Amino acid sequence: MHTHGLPGRSPGAPVRAGIPEHGRIPKYYAVKAQVAGLLDELGEGGLLPTERELAARFEVSRETVRQALRELLLEGRLRRRGRGTVVAGPKLEQPLALASYTEGVRRQGRRPGRSLVGLDRLACPAALAPDLGVEPLAPVWHLERVLLADDERVGLESTYVAVERAPRLDADFEPDSSFYGYLRERLGIGFGDADERLETVLATPREALLIGTPPALPMLLIHRVSRDTGGRPLERVRSLYRGDRFSFTTHLRGEDS
Amino acid sequence: MHTHGLPGRSPGAPVRAGIPEHGRIPKYYAVKAQVAGLLDELGEGGLLPTERELAARFEVSRETVRQALRELLLEGRLRRRGRGTVVAGPKLEQPLALASYTEGVRRQGRRPGRSLVGLDRLACPAALAPDLGVEPLAPVWHLERVLLADDERVGLESTYVAVERAPRLDADFEPDSSFYGYLRERLGIGFGDADERLETVLATPREALLIGTPPALPMLLIHRVSRDTGGRPLERVRSLYRGDRFSFTTHLRGEDS
Repeated sequence: MHTHGLPGRSPGAPVRAGIPEHGRIPKYYAVKAQVAGLLDELGEGGLLPTERELAARFEVSRETVRQALRELLLEGRLRRRGRGTVVAGPKLEQPLALASYTEGVRRQGRRPGRSLVGLDRLACPAALAPDLGVEPLAPVWHLERVLLADDERVGLESTYVAVERAPRLDADFEPDSSFYGYLRERLGIGFGDADERLETVLATPREALLIGTPPALPMLLIHRVSRDTGGRPLERVRSLYRGDRFSFTTHLRGEDS
Repeated sequence: MHTHGLPGRSPGAPVRAGIPEHGRIPKYYAVKAQVAGLLDELGEGGLLPTERELAARFEVSRETVRQALRELLLEGRLRRRGRGTVVAGPKLEQPLALASYTEGVRRQGRRPGRSLVGLDRLACPAALAPDLGVEPLAPVWHLERVLLADDERVGLESTYVAVERAPRLDADFEPDSSFYGYLRERLGIGFGDADERLETVLATPREALLIGTPPALPMLLIHRVSRDTGGRPLERVRSLYRGDRFSFTTHLRGEDS
């Protein structure tokens, strides 16, 4: 079995070499490299041969094939479709910017959507109060929505905002629409700036259930605290995105420019 | 067994509720929540009871305890130390900025380091050439280094730069020092701007070996293409960070400000 044609996506790009310099190449990883080569031939949406066929072709056990496919699924290079497995398209690239999820997804020719999990009114926990610019126990909204792209569930967004900033959120906000659009157009609140922190986490069982992901799937979690154009605290958001479906982009400028 | 005290890190922060609204709570997850509560009591560096002791305390099998601990390890809340398991400190927060790794780590009171994996001279692959501002097959350097924080291996950085930009890299660059400092101080090259893309990936076997991570650990991968202050292409970098040890921060400004 040859072990070139590694699972890096763009052939001339810096190589994600997969072969330890010391020690053996794990057998499943050699199979993964072979299958990755096959994906390039099949192209997006192409149907992968069955585990049984792949095991026969590469002369390994089905368990070895399964381990290779599991990693390719977690990395978003393969997707389940019905009872088959197909070659996935590229990850969605979402800009790290104040623009909303809606705008980011639309820019890539996908149809954004949100489905409401819940809108609750609660007493603000003390640790959250400074981020929302309220006293502890002041009423706050917790808006939770599943993020959709072309009807596929791709994330979960959890927003906290003071009731005094958006008193009628429960009455006149359309849960499938952009919350930022609502703030801007209905309430005249503009975004000033935000601090974000991005990390990778494992989905909790509840999150995996809501998003419909396998439990061990790495997710990208963005914490956002934002202020309005007057510098007044506005909202705290926790956005969880499928790690196999999203990447985030940013443009950096030198300090002198 | 009560299931409050979920593994969210800051008590008053938006809750990462772990309990599916429909369906049962997985037993390992309830144990994970209990252990997470214990971590808060023990504090950073505190030694966790053994698997056997935890299994007895929570009246579950050792396999259930192991699954709970595995997730807490992958999430960076626990660390192995010798034969024991201790409560981990918070993740390092690295700013998404043109500043180097060295500066980011130092700002948090940790001691940055780099250990050389290799410095190779190669013919530039066609797909990489535009990013480096050279013709295909022009000579380029590939500098690969393991990133260290207080002697702990936390990442792997792979830099491509044209030989014509840094002709004596193999002779007068100290591999443990900042490459950006070298460009600035020795060659008078200043950073203009960069495009970055961030995603979560699984470490390859080679990467896991070099960084010393468990194979299934989610990693944060940053692709960077940067230009100098004159807008001329400079380098392409692929930085891989342990997902259990790093988070990335950014400050966003509204388009009007």
